Amino acid sequence: MTTPSSAVPVLGMVGAGQLARMTHQATIGLSIDFRVLAQDPAESAALVTPGASLGSWHSLDDLEAFASQCDVVTFDHELTDPAHLHALEERGHVLRPSASAERWAQDKQFQRDGLLAAGFPVPEFSAATSADEVVAFGEAQGWPVVVKATRGGYDGRGVWVVADADEARSVATDALAAGTELLVEEFLDLDREIAVAVARRPGGEQVRYAVTETVQRNGICTELVVPAPVSDELAAAALDLAGRLVDHVDGTGIVAVELFVAADGRLLVNELALRPHNSVHWTIEGARTSQFQNHARAALDLPLGDASMTAPAVALVNVLGPADGSDPRSRLAEALAVEGVAVHLYGKESKPGRKIGHVTAVGDDLAETRERAREAARRLTNEEQWHG
Amino acid sequence: MTTPSSAVPVLGMVGAGQLARMTHQATIGLSIDFRVLAQDPAESAALVTPGASLGSWHSLDDLEAFASQCDVVTFDHELTDPAHLHALEERGHVLRPSASAERWAQDKQFQRDGLLAAGFPVPEFSAATSADEVVAFGEAQGWPVVVKATRGGYDGRGVWVVADADEARSVATDALAAGTELLVEEFLDLDREIAVAVARRPGGEQVRYAVTETVQRNGICTELVVPAPVSDELAAAALDLAGRLVDHVDGTGIVAVELFVAADGRLLVNELALRPHNSVHWTIEGARTSQFQNHARAALDLPLGDASMTAPAVALVNVLGPADGSDPRSRLAEALAVEGVAVHLYGKESKPGRKIGHVTAVGDDLAETRERAREAARRLTNEEQWHG
Repeated sequence: MTTPSSAVPVLGMVGAGQLARMTHQATIGLSIDFRVLAQDPAESAALVTPGASLGSWHSLDDLEAFASQCDVVTFDHELTDPAHLHALEERGHVLRPSASAERWAQDKQFQRDGLLAAGFPVPEFSAATSADEVVAFGEAQGWPVVVKATRGGYDGRGVWVVADADEARSVATDALAAGTELLVEEFLDLDREIAVAVARRPGGEQVRYAVTETVQRNGICTELVVPAPVSDELAAAALDLAGRLVDHVDGTGIVAVELFVAADGRLLVNELALRPHNSVHWTIEGARTSQFQNHARAALDLPLGDASMTAPAVALVNVLGPADGSDPRSRLAEALAVEGVAVHLYGKESKPGRKIGHVTAVGDDLAETRERAREAARRLTNEEQWHG
Repeated sequence: MTTPSSAVPVLGMVGAGQLARMTHQATIGLSIDFRVLAQDPAESAALVTPGASLGSWHSLDDLEAFASQCDVVTFDHELTDPAHLHALEERGHVLRPSASAERWAQDKQFQRDGLLAAGFPVPEFSAATSADEVVAFGEAQGWPVVVKATRGGYDGRGVWVVADADEARSVATDALAAGTELLVEEFLDLDREIAVAVARRPGGEQVRYAVTETVQRNGICTELVVPAPVSDELAAAALDLAGRLVDHVDGTGIVAVELFVAADGRLLVNELALRPHNSVHWTIEGARTSQFQNHARAALDLPLGDASMTAPAVALVNVLGPADGSDPRSRLAEALAVEGVAVHLYGKESKPGRKIGHVTAVGDDLAETRERAREAARRLTNEEQWHG
């Protein structure tokens, strides 16, 4: 590692999407030197940061050149080639999360196997290297089942719910032929989905944010409700589970633990993300220290900030590009006229269904607070995107 | 004005100090195009914004070139030549605040004359075009008196408390010889100093922040305490006075109204600032919408955000460069270890006495909250800067 000479630490983030954009925003007061590696100067974070480094996270040379300017490298996504991550570490660069921790978010098969072996609750699952194995799992567990790509899926991509043997065979055959490795899981009858975000320093110090309900539509999170409307016992179990899991994977920075609450009462691990995560965007206004600042503090091994809520109730509605192709930025004034709502637009071109922003409301009453956030999103999009 | 073509409004700020820096931070979520006019790429705001325009606010050509890229131009300071401001308006550029409103902050003589004529409470004062006039005022009002430069003073500069006729004659003679225009005011026995910040849109819509006590040392504000420990009646009078005053001067954006609470019970106007102001930096964590976002919203004629507090008590301690010449950034980790404190460092080189940051704490109890903010400032500076 080429250690930059200044007393001010240089934190580099690979990727320049909205997570990097909001990390920059959250760390300005710390007077650190925050840099992003962007593929294009029009990317979300590159629009608001000085001197974005241009390069591809697919290229080890570009990653190496970027890392050489930084004390610590962190990530806006988990898509970087694991071999590149290990190569950077071998050359002395400090990655937080580390290459080995990142694998828990990059490889679902590794994650399921590892969590099961360590005693963490996961759905029934099986590796599937052939269509026959998918069908056999469905016949044994009952239909439908969920087929998942082991790598690269998010926001509903790489996940297929298949209703019977014919559909399973068709989906699995196509995916395997395309080189996609698969696993197959039981289809859960869900009570709801929740998430717990943990910020963790290299030495193990943790803070945990309040349990969040993540409301999904078509595999995309449309709303957050905090605190999640679950029993105190379930919330405590979720916080405990997330805290132990983040220690187990040796995460540094924010780790978001997405959990299923099954109708039969089981609490099961869904996904992990070792980076700032949409499920805790509410922390910008709704917590004393946002996930973005705590991600940076954890990555730089600085003391973590207070994760407690600023109000009894917080609601967040994601803003997706509306179907009519219009740009929500043209309706900013209408949204800001909703009392007590914070608008976050990511500077991204509006395309139907693309996540381009979110709105957050804080208050005393969850239903009233949620309605305010929905009203602002409705004004931005001319749609009711949160309806199933 | 050359209207930029995008649907996204371009807000330009003349000056690139910490006010511009924090305005950028506060407006990232609005997805506006925020630009600064910087004299040097190492200035506080230029360090965190993309593509700062380089130029001098002393130069009408540079101001004109900058304004031509913007829908609306606002200001990080009130030092721009009034003739330049009027020239920009004559050429069709939109300034918020306007050149005529800005005069209230630029010219103390104009301000005192105008406020007195309009019935606002101001200290006893007189213009002083000669040392004899200063002495005559002191003989009539009693010593000491306060001599002020009518333009350009801040943070204790351009203000002299003179104890007697000899000192008055010496100070006034030197200042007048240097071309400084003066006024002279009664020296008030103060109970305390307070401030009220108002955000105001061009059409007159206002929101007002809670009354703040501004604790001063050597003419520099060292601490803020919110809500100010004054009676409900006094707080209401201060809010009412500030609201009427901001309407009277036709301010747009944030207007900070600094007020004296005299020991004899009088509430008197001290200073006005037509821009984001240090007296309300607590609003970043302590209010639902910060002064910086509301400044931008008001300047762009967007609906204003909720100015209510996020907690019952907020305290802020300014961070001045310590006497030993050390850089508080090297002690960031120690400060962040104080529970529940937000650190804001401005990216400025540390020089003894220079305002280079602030720390904010929120809580339920003012004394406990204030102690947390002081502890963080103590750790950053190795000093107790708030002691008189």
